[in-house]
Amino acid sequence: MAKIRVAVVGASGYTGVELMRILALHPGVELTIVTSRQHTGQPVAGLFPSLREIVGLEFSDNDLDEVAKKADLVFTALPHKAAIEVVAALHAAGKKVVDLSADYRFSDRALYEEWYQPHSRPEVLAKAVYGLPELFRNEIVEAGIVGNPGCYPTSVILPLAPILKLGLVDPGNRIIIDAKSGTSGAGRGLSTGSLYCEVNESFKPYKAGQHRHQPEMVEQLGRVGGRRPDILFVPHLLPVNRGILSSIYVSLNRDAESELVADALQTAYADEPFVRLLPQGELPALSAVRGSNYCDIAYVLTGKRQLILFSAIDNLVKGAAGQAVQNMNLMCGLPETSGLATVALAP
Amino acid sequence: MAKIRVAVVGASGYTGVELMRILALHPGVELTIVTSRQHTGQPVAGLFPSLREIVGLEFSDNDLDEVAKKADLVFTALPHKAAIEVVAALHAAGKKVVDLSADYRFSDRALYEEWYQPHSRPEVLAKAVYGLPELFRNEIVEAGIVGNPGCYPTSVILPLAPILKLGLVDPGNRIIIDAKSGTSGAGRGLSTGSLYCEVNESFKPYKAGQHRHQPEMVEQLGRVGGRRPDILFVPHLLPVNRGILSSIYVSLNRDAESELVADALQTAYADEPFVRLLPQGELPALSAVRGSNYCDIAYVLTGKRQLILFSAIDNLVKGAAGQAVQNMNLMCGLPETSGLATVALAP
Amino acid sequence: MAKIRVAVVGASGYTGVELMRILALHPGVELTIVTSRQHTGQPVAGLFPSLREIVGLEFSDNDLDEVAKKADLVFTALPHKAAIEVVAALHAAGKKVVDLSADYRFSDRALYEEWYQPHSRPEVLAKAVYGLPELFRNEIVEAGIVGNPGCYPTSVILPLAPILKLGLVDPGNRIIIDAKSGTSGAGRGLSTGSLYCEVNESFKPYKAGQHRHQPEMVEQLGRVGGRRPDILFVPHLLPVNRGILSSIYVSLNRDAESELVADALQTAYADEPFVRLLPQGELPALSAVRGSNYCDIAYVLTGKRQLILFSAIDNLVKGAAGQAVQNMNLMCGLPETSGLATVALAP
Amino acid sequence: MAKIRVAVVGASGYTGVELMRILALHPGVELTIVTSRQHTGQPVAGLFPSLREIVGLEFSDNDLDEVAKKADLVFTALPHKAAIEVVAALHAAGKKVVDLSADYRFSDRALYEEWYQPHSRPEVLAKAVYGLPELFRNEIVEAGIVGNPGCYPTSVILPLAPILKLGLVDPGNRIIIDAKSGTSGAGRGLSTGSLYCEVNESFKPYKAGQHRHQPEMVEQLGRVGGRRPDILFVPHLLPVNRGILSSIYVSLNRDAESELVADALQTAYADEPFVRLLPQGELPALSAVRGSNYCDIAYVLTGKRQLILFSAIDNLVKGAAGQAVQNMNLMCGLPETSGLATVALAP
Repeated sequence: MAKIRVAVVGASGYTGVELMRILALHPGVELTIVTSRQHTGQPVAGLFPSLREIVGLEFSDNDLDEVAKKADLVFTALPHKAAIEVVAALHAAGKKVVDLSADYRFSDRALYEEWYQPHSRPEVLAKAVYGLPELFRNEIVEAGIVGNPGCYPTSVILPLAPILKLGLVDPGNRIIIDAKSGTSGAGRGLSTGSLYCEVNESFKPYKAGQHRHQPEMVEQLGRVGGRRPDILFVPHLLPVNRGILSSIYVSLNRDAESELVADALQTAYADEPFVRLLPQGELPALSAVRGSNYCDIAYVLTGKRQLILFSAIDNLVKGAAGQAVQNMNLMCGLPETSGLATVALAP
Repeated sequence: MAKIRVAVVGASGYTGVELMRILALHPGVELTIVTSRQHTGQPVAGLFPSLREIVGLEFSDNDLDEVAKKADLVFTALPHKAAIEVVAALHAAGKKVVDLSADYRFSDRALYEEWYQPHSRPEVLAKAVYGLPELFRNEIVEAGIVGNPGCYPTSVILPLAPILKLGLVDPGNRIIIDAKSGTSGAGRGLSTGSLYCEVNESFKPYKAGQHRHQPEMVEQLGRVGGRRPDILFVPHLLPVNRGILSSIYVSLNRDAESELVADALQTAYADEPFVRLLPQGELPALSAVRGSNYCDIAYVLTGKRQLILFSAIDNLVKGAAGQAVQNMNLMCGLPETSGLATVALAP
Repeated sequence: MAKIRVAVVGASGYTGVELMRILALHPGVELTIVTSRQHTGQPVAGLFPSLREIVGLEFSDNDLDEVAKKADLVFTALPHKAAIEVVAALHAAGKKVVDLSADYRFSDRALYEEWYQPHSRPEVLAKAVYGLPELFRNEIVEAGIVGNPGCYPTSVILPLAPILKLGLVDPGNRIIIDAKSGTSGAGRGLSTGSLYCEVNESFKPYKAGQHRHQPEMVEQLGRVGGRRPDILFVPHLLPVNRGILSSIYVSLNRDAESELVADALQTAYADEPFVRLLPQGELPALSAVRGSNYCDIAYVLTGKRQLILFSAIDNLVKGAAGQAVQNMNLMCGLPETSGLATVALAP
Repeated sequence: MAKIRVAVVGASGYTGVELMRILALHPGVELTIVTSRQHTGQPVAGLFPSLREIVGLEFSDNDLDEVAKKADLVFTALPHKAAIEVVAALHAAGKKVVDLSADYRFSDRALYEEWYQPHSRPEVLAKAVYGLPELFRNEIVEAGIVGNPGCYPTSVILPLAPILKLGLVDPGNRIIIDAKSGTSGAGRGLSTGSLYCEVNESFKPYKAGQHRHQPEMVEQLGRVGGRRPDILFVPHLLPVNRGILSSIYVSLNRDAESELVADALQTAYADEPFVRLLPQGELPALSAVRGSNYCDIAYVLTGKRQLILFSAIDNLVKGAAGQAVQNMNLMCGLPETSGLATVALAP
């Protein structure tokens, strides 16, 4: 079978290098062009020495005609807002697109515009599909544009969805999500808060209740559960490169037996290749997923209708590039796990 | 004024070295004897090179007669259970004691025995005072034995107490405490889980809803608020040496204005030397308290009666050795801040 | 082609988990049995959650008959001394063995015994081959027992060998090797020096001029260069999980042009799949090799006959498990890069 | 005694915050003004939360008249080149100055200009004194301008000076200095190479043989030893916030007994308050000096005339702000250890 030709537009960030890491070893694709306005003409291996002798390309300018000529499917890894027109143009050129920004994640345009900015391509947005394969696989298979989920939402929606779907959650009580992300989630851009000496040996919350990933979770969980849940999302910055661990506090609406929760998760994920349900008594750790496409999930029922869900992902893999490749596999008729069967690097 | 002679019993752990670090520079005390059964006869500076040319002592055996002879006040930094008899004996010998184990923290003996083990000295326990100066200063001043608070409880009780005291918390809703501690909290003992390669680049929850610091919080907050609150406490292990950051989720019982919360905290802590209330819009970070005796507190009101309290301490200072010295200062009539006026090491 | 059945004896350390990580994805092998005396009967995924749903085995006891029955090739990842008899027995049973201890690395038995202990199987030792494929590929292909190189020696021999081979080094001057290793090099055993809080935010030298890897380097470089070089080897402990960076200071015996050094390295390694020679002006970094089987090499000529060689490897991959699999590939007639074509995890 | 009024010009970097940390607790000084062009008008505690309730100042503009009016002694913590005129102006205004840039460290103007840029104030440079108190205390006491030593040179000159002074070093052999610095040494400026994800879990050499601190070492060691030594200096970037560990390889010019080296170091430093000579068999570690003004020194003699010197300092304290305060103490007639008697924060 001919390899699928793929491109990465905006490849000089951490999502970009991670996409290239995965795509370089993917048996079904050929990486034909990667772009970066800032690094045009520079060898990829000059910027990312980990890719030396693996990716032989130079960064190209963001010339979309050239991209469209060379690729069948394009990953757009641009900042939100910048992606709106780029995705629309590539779609118009007949390309499949997996967009890693927030620009094509929302079905509810008003919600997007409330938290981001006006969306200049609502007709294109209307065609995009939310790319969480475990929940929306059938739609993704048919999609021309996939809005790749945010890293935090991936870590939150996967454990919560089966519980909400079954109506186990007390709608009168807020769901508290205390999430902790590694620093690569802040990107490769220059900011004092991302300096080594600022992050190392520290830890802190940020944007409590005000993070843009909160409405994304609400919208998608609303689709799953029939009504938009009341969520409070509080992210924190962890001194690690990779990983998100979310601790999710849920009040159940009845004295749910442990079996009910276990069943909900089992039914949803027992056959999923990238979701691992931990045995009772074990809790997830970032080290068990680092570099892999897994989402590890565990739960604790403390009695008194209190459920705690824990999830762990690698924010750059299942939270970004790995999930994007999983979506590509689905969109292109490749085996869903192709290129993604890696084991976490531990220690 | 003659210096107070102090001892540290069980000085070879992280709490021990931190006590010695602080006491060595304290203008009002003389460190006369430090004990360690395991390291008897070894120079302190051999085990702890940071103390070279600062602490010239060798570790002595745990000979309590010798300790009692050489010290007016004793810090006991033994594991819980081991401290019960040691503290009782030193108390019987007329010594003031600050105990850093859990053995003298509980007024409610039954609660202690439910979570720890039988307490063989209930009559001594009855005399002990809980050593959180910001709440119980007057009792500490008079005390012969102080049970030094746990690290997590310190980080939780300080922000919550003023809110509970004012009756702002909806008693029908559970208080969720998502706490994250640096690895020194696990002590200097050998355990696979404390190895560098296990902790570094990872993050994980542990003992969700089952940590022994939970009943300690409940008891003390019950004293403050008039009734024991419904608390869920979930600790996590952070890849940093020092620091606890607690994120505390509280449902208020009415539409509390922001001013009400601010007033409660201001009234409680405006004059406290070791509590810093952050200005609106700022959130605490471990780096701002590392090595200092401060507890930094901030809050966010998200509307819908949802309050989030954040606190940051250094678990070895305000969460252990620093608070112990603060208690000693009070017990001995020294200025409360003596020896503790340090600035966090940042970066 | 039938898969080669492989075993790992002594699989509960960091080398063990790394071998399993690589072997689990290796297309040409089947992992049939892994042993650990301490963890016998425990699921591998219980000890190493990163291997959940990947390695379904339980740890077996170290029953060599069972191992011999189930495997064609055995990786022995035992402490030195313990490996001597185990390797001999497996060899006697007709198994191919890759030994990751020091017990079969030395041709010079006396040198081994000077630095380790008496070798009770000299006749077996005499058959073993030093498993550095880039230098001794032909011998490895024929070998029944391969002594897998030490992590430090791998990082030192690869850059130095071509220079010594060409006689560029002034024999009157000592070669200074200042090496820095991540903490996984110290193993998964319990020791205060390996605790998170002892290693994190620190850095220190150890065993200066006294490390057992020094004679290993000397012997192998002596084979390459015709005479044993005068080497001073000083290791340091780095606060990272993985990686060795060696800085090697060499006095050349004439005013070697830069081209001469470049040519020596190019000739030796231009076609090697796991050695990358960096372009002039770039220096290696651990992040570029983390999790991969690469050895990155660069050099600086400062004039005045002073050469500095730098190398970077992942100590658990090219320095241990990856190189062991590379040796297995050669011994079993598999493509040398099989199972090893991974890209470093960066960031 | 009236407190000395001090200023920090250019206080928004890591050296600035460290100076403020130390000066805030110094009993003999009053910090009256701190400047930052970029942060003019902003509260110091807004930029540096560790200083909340400790430093109540706002950053002032770099108005030198204002500085001169408010301070008796000024610390200039500007980038090199920028400091030239500022120091000259403050000196002309009759102020004592401790300059933390490189601009006033060199006696040999030509050497400075070879590695930096033209020096527009040679007549002021001629008056400046190199501020390494252990070697040049008498000059510092009399100085109006002190060029505060570089961090690497401090860590290198202290261990080497006594050895060179005694003529123990073989002048025909190059001294190899393999130094490793924490990331705060790179400053608080924005650069991709200083991002958390670039530094964490990595390690790398940089500017091998080309770092500007090399000529500084050469000049000062030349003063001490009578001739400029042949030095090769290779720095590396460590994933820690603070600390420099230098490993120094020296060929002795005769079979120096261990006692000779020990005597040289003892004679030089036995009475020095901030130099600790470790007992034989112990090697320095960054954790033992973190946050303190100590330089820990050890040596190993491997026989064959090979000496290895190791030193550890905190680059922000003994390598910058602490040494600057030590110089201030000498210049102002304060006890040399005033404000500097801190213990390393370990763990």
